[in-house]
Amino acid sequence: MPNIRHGAVACANLRTMSTTETPAPLLSRPQVYIEDVARNLDAYDGKEVNIKGWLYNKRSSGKLHFLEVRDGTGILQCVMFVKDVSAELFARADHLPQETSLVVSGKVRLDKRSPLGFELGLTGMEVVAEPTKEYPISPKEHGVAFLMDQRHLWLRSRRQHAILRVRAEIVAAVRRYFDSHGFTLVDAPIFTPAACEGTTNLFEVGYFDQKAYLTQSGQLYMEAAAMALGKVYCLGPTFRAEKSKTRRHLTEFWMVEPEVAYLDLTGVMDLAEDFVVSVVEQVLANRRRELEVLERDITKLELVKKPFPRITYEEAIGLLQKAGKETKFGDDFGGDEETVISEHFDRPVMIHHYPAEIKAFYMKRDPQNPKLALGVDLIGPEGYGEIIGGGQREEDLARIEASVEAHGLPREAFEWYLDLRRYGSVPHGGFGLGIERTVSWICGLHHVRETIPFPRMLERLTP
Amino acid sequence: MPNIRHGAVACANLRTMSTTETPAPLLSRPQVYIEDVARNLDAYDGKEVNIKGWLYNKRSSGKLHFLEVRDGTGILQCVMFVKDVSAELFARADHLPQETSLVVSGKVRLDKRSPLGFELGLTGMEVVAEPTKEYPISPKEHGVAFLMDQRHLWLRSRRQHAILRVRAEIVAAVRRYFDSHGFTLVDAPIFTPAACEGTTNLFEVGYFDQKAYLTQSGQLYMEAAAMALGKVYCLGPTFRAEKSKTRRHLTEFWMVEPEVAYLDLTGVMDLAEDFVVSVVEQVLANRRRELEVLERDITKLELVKKPFPRITYEEAIGLLQKAGKETKFGDDFGGDEETVISEHFDRPVMIHHYPAEIKAFYMKRDPQNPKLALGVDLIGPEGYGEIIGGGQREEDLARIEASVEAHGLPREAFEWYLDLRRYGSVPHGGFGLGIERTVSWICGLHHVRETIPFPRMLERLTP
Repeated sequence: MPNIRHGAVACANLRTMSTTETPAPLLSRPQVYIEDVARNLDAYDGKEVNIKGWLYNKRSSGKLHFLEVRDGTGILQCVMFVKDVSAELFARADHLPQETSLVVSGKVRLDKRSPLGFELGLTGMEVVAEPTKEYPISPKEHGVAFLMDQRHLWLRSRRQHAILRVRAEIVAAVRRYFDSHGFTLVDAPIFTPAACEGTTNLFEVGYFDQKAYLTQSGQLYMEAAAMALGKVYCLGPTFRAEKSKTRRHLTEFWMVEPEVAYLDLTGVMDLAEDFVVSVVEQVLANRRRELEVLERDITKLELVKKPFPRITYEEAIGLLQKAGKETKFGDDFGGDEETVISEHFDRPVMIHHYPAEIKAFYMKRDPQNPKLALGVDLIGPEGYGEIIGGGQREEDLARIEASVEAHGLPREAFEWYLDLRRYGSVPHGGFGLGIERTVSWICGLHHVRETIPFPRMLERLTP
Repeated sequence: MPNIRHGAVACANLRTMSTTETPAPLLSRPQVYIEDVARNLDAYDGKEVNIKGWLYNKRSSGKLHFLEVRDGTGILQCVMFVKDVSAELFARADHLPQETSLVVSGKVRLDKRSPLGFELGLTGMEVVAEPTKEYPISPKEHGVAFLMDQRHLWLRSRRQHAILRVRAEIVAAVRRYFDSHGFTLVDAPIFTPAACEGTTNLFEVGYFDQKAYLTQSGQLYMEAAAMALGKVYCLGPTFRAEKSKTRRHLTEFWMVEPEVAYLDLTGVMDLAEDFVVSVVEQVLANRRRELEVLERDITKLELVKKPFPRITYEEAIGLLQKAGKETKFGDDFGGDEETVISEHFDRPVMIHHYPAEIKAFYMKRDPQNPKLALGVDLIGPEGYGEIIGGGQREEDLARIEASVEAHGLPREAFEWYLDLRRYGSVPHGGFGLGIERTVSWICGLHHVRETIPFPRMLERLTP
């Protein structure tokens, strides 16, 4: 067996980096993350640590430089006192531009005025690389189009950083919920041979000698998987080629879609409610600091408790008419209607029993009133619109065949889906929750474009 | 505020289902999952439970029916004794075909001979729906093409069920590892404006008036994100339009890609090793029963411990030549070479310092020997091939500019990527791990087509 090598190659490498001017002992020493110190203040109090990061901001007052250093986990105030370092280093620190990459070392000093609970008294500093040009994003206000062009750099800003961390927490909370409630993750395919709900908003891909479409929803596949595994979910990107430029639309967005065998409409509503409460609770528990950076009104999120109000579509129409809207039975709700309805409640509201005509072909009709579908939408509070859409699926073969035909869908492409009603059909249901709209609501963002790391919209395909 | 409704609608609905012949009290009673009973045998011993599922298999011996019922979490033997049920029900049970959906109720009886630790003594049964045709997948052997056409049903088979559960556990283990080691999930975009490694194997999409390409890797975006958040990862589908029909290729596959600022090649190897050990350990801890269903040699997986051997590309060439291969310096390794190398070791092996010429444009060259790239591949044991590819990235602006040019890449499309070297450039690295190849290795599967719920290959776009 050849020798096992450890460390030698890469450490040598770091020591000879062309971007450092002098041998770089700080760069090759172990790194401590700001967040880890903040979480273990007692253990680190008075200890010497090495932070590797970037210069975020700087101010000076004669004998002191205050360097704000970010390392991806936090932004730390580092204090360089003229007497603690060489004159050369002190002078150097005075001329460092924003986004200089650098390693600082010093002593952890607890400080209750700091949001992190500590600051660093510097004893050493090494510049890893200075920007080759002036950093384009200054603390002044920039236009959104400019910032979107600089998205790869904009992510470094305090606000975008906070949004990304909340987004990651939401996705983790979603997965924790389903993984701990007996659901099995089943990844839905992205390439699909047929349209789930019409071809209008589909992206078409040349697939060797065929055509494929990018998925709009994993639901049909989740129905198949639920018959195999009982409780399943998928979480992945979905695509809509909508030509609309609204604050709620992306061409590429992420969706989580649970599906459960032997679940009826009430079960779907119970699941949606329990799930949403759990996600909000986990974000409040783990990302409160980020919500504060975003100046989110946290008291509004703390109201998201069970039970959520459940109203029928007809009751919702009543609310809209009372508010002076001319909405009538059979109309679908747009953003305006959703906002008016949400204003009646201090938490998410579930609207169920929509007219079957305005809902998808797979929705089960209410046996008591076949004009109604056993579907439910969950509308976020504060005007954030539809967060969840779902319901019970039609499980009867003859009725789903009739529905495929009535909707003008290509029967052959749906044969496999009809098989689910031929073999072992059971009542079942589920829903889809849009990740970006949920991030938008929880972070309190007006536009979804900041809820995803690299947004794709009608006129935005870069960077 | 309108009334809050609970339960009424859907329970009524279930009770009047057209597919049941009689009122269905069992269907509307609470469901217990087989797996939950198996995990809490003492609590359920002697208790009456309701299992909702499907008939998987059946045999009879005069006064007894043995019904194997699956509910998505397990396959349970249910014993129906002629004296415990009505004559009508006993006769009915004798004529139920495979994949009948049904609810059974009865008493939990502990039984050490059962792999689950218990069986169910039936006192009641309700048929939810009988198949409308004979179920196409019988216990006899079927050809793979046929089973792939029936993928939506094939998932219900014991073996496919086990693979999907191991896959879900691998993805969960991957996420748990990164989430608990300070990484932030940053979703990479699927629509990309430019090719990361040439346009040959790209899927092209009409994007309104432009063209877009489906991502082959999130790496370049992760590099941007690592400069913002320090330690990041993405986990999502990636696409390669390869016209090859091998047992290791899918057109759509999932990849996890961590990227870390201030990490060198040794750090990348340490991370890859720690990560792979953790994933295998978690699968062994949580999915041992499924690995037994797959008849996986678990002792081979138990050998996956630190340290993994680390050999240079040159040492690997030596191994190949000793084995009689004619591979010479400058050749890339294919599946055959990987298998020969893997046979020298009882665990994954890492090969580093490849010739720069055969590696991607973004790889950092070894300052000691610029003909070599600071890249590493991790080769799975037992001939499962490359599981991980990664390394340290070039952080110097002039060198990465030269590399973009030397590789004939469109400079303009890479300007944003070059910005990462203009502003706050630091040494950094990461890797990509293919989920399907990892599932293939851990499950011991010859072909990757069974590692993903709905595989997409050169000639397979359905169901």
